[in-house]
Amino acid sequence: MEQTTRAAVRDAVITGLSEHGYPGLTVEYVAEHSGVHKTTLYRRWGGLEGLLAEALDLAGDDAWTAPDTGSLEGDLRALALEVVDSFARPDDAAAPTAFIAAAFQSERAADALRAFYTERFSRCEAVVTRAVARGEATAAIDSAALVRAVTAPLFLRLFITREPVDTALADQSAAVALAAARAGAFNRPD
Amino acid sequence: MEQTTRAAVRDAVITGLSEHGYPGLTVEYVAEHSGVHKTTLYRRWGGLEGLLAEALDLAGDDAWTAPDTGSLEGDLRALALEVVDSFARPDDAAAPTAFIAAAFQSERAADALRAFYTERFSRCEAVVTRAVARGEATAAIDSAALVRAVTAPLFLRLFITREPVDTALADQSAAVALAAARAGAFNRPD
Repeated sequence: MEQTTRAAVRDAVITGLSEHGYPGLTVEYVAEHSGVHKTTLYRRWGGLEGLLAEALDLAGDDAWTAPDTGSLEGDLRALALEVVDSFARPDDAAAPTAFIAAAFQSERAADALRAFYTERFSRCEAVVTRAVARGEATAAIDSAALVRAVTAPLFLRLFITREPVDTALADQSAAVALAAARAGAFNRPD
Repeated sequence: MEQTTRAAVRDAVITGLSEHGYPGLTVEYVAEHSGVHKTTLYRRWGGLEGLLAEALDLAGDDAWTAPDTGSLEGDLRALALEVVDSFARPDDAAAPTAFIAAAFQSERAADALRAFYTERFSRCEAVVTRAVARGEATAAIDSAALVRAVTAPLFLRLFITREPVDTALADQSAAVALAAARAGAFNRPD
């Protein structure tokens, strides 16, 4: 299927999720807003769960790269701030929030979300690779754990405890992750 | 309304959430399983969102206290392990997971979830208070941030990135939070 059709379907899924959330999204909505016939959507993607997985798959195709400020401290702070920023405006937050919500109701959406975040966090690990190259961190560091730790307190408050997040919290998360990294707490056991 | 009725309603809501999740729970189900008439449920709680908030409110009424192992390190590790354990068995995980999911679809559920976790984490802060009393931590420490940081990497993987969690990850989360605490990264600015 040509790229423009896939992009139209993805855009319709994301717009639908933003406007109605996962329980409110229908194949009819995607057909209407993508201009792709409903029977084609069912044949190609099987239904709503397949459309959602497709949209998440395409969402991961962007050119995003991890911040590169020249220091591990700056990069960790920038990563944390990006999480705060990306969920600060309701318009920006709607689609990613709907994907996270959909994973509670659909195993296939959960699989797609896992694939999306695995790939996204592997891009984040560039900040650790560069820190190791600069001599700011040891090669023994568990970079996957570090990049997750710096954002985890923000995701916890956004989606579990439902508490506010702000730049001060992003700074604190970065400082905590950095201090632990410097103390060797992320190093893999020998 | 007497305590036994409230408890029956709470049990029915939790059983229903465990079996059907939030989108599948109905007032009819709660009426049938609690033995409380549907019109009474509507009159008293307004509907499904109110019943959910009531169940969360009562869920917070338990006698749970934070672990007290004698050291900050032991307590943080025990806290992290409790999160892993409580979501390890599908039967135990179903109701808390359904509450977290419901908060995506209902502002009232989100408010109730925030109240539940705020109170739960304030009980966790006892581990920090005791650590300060033992001289293991300074009074300047942001104990609310510390108890959230130790569990955040687990919640991130359980509900956002949908990755597995295990005791090794709990130990790492505790070691990271402890190292950051010892380095003063949780201390409030002067």
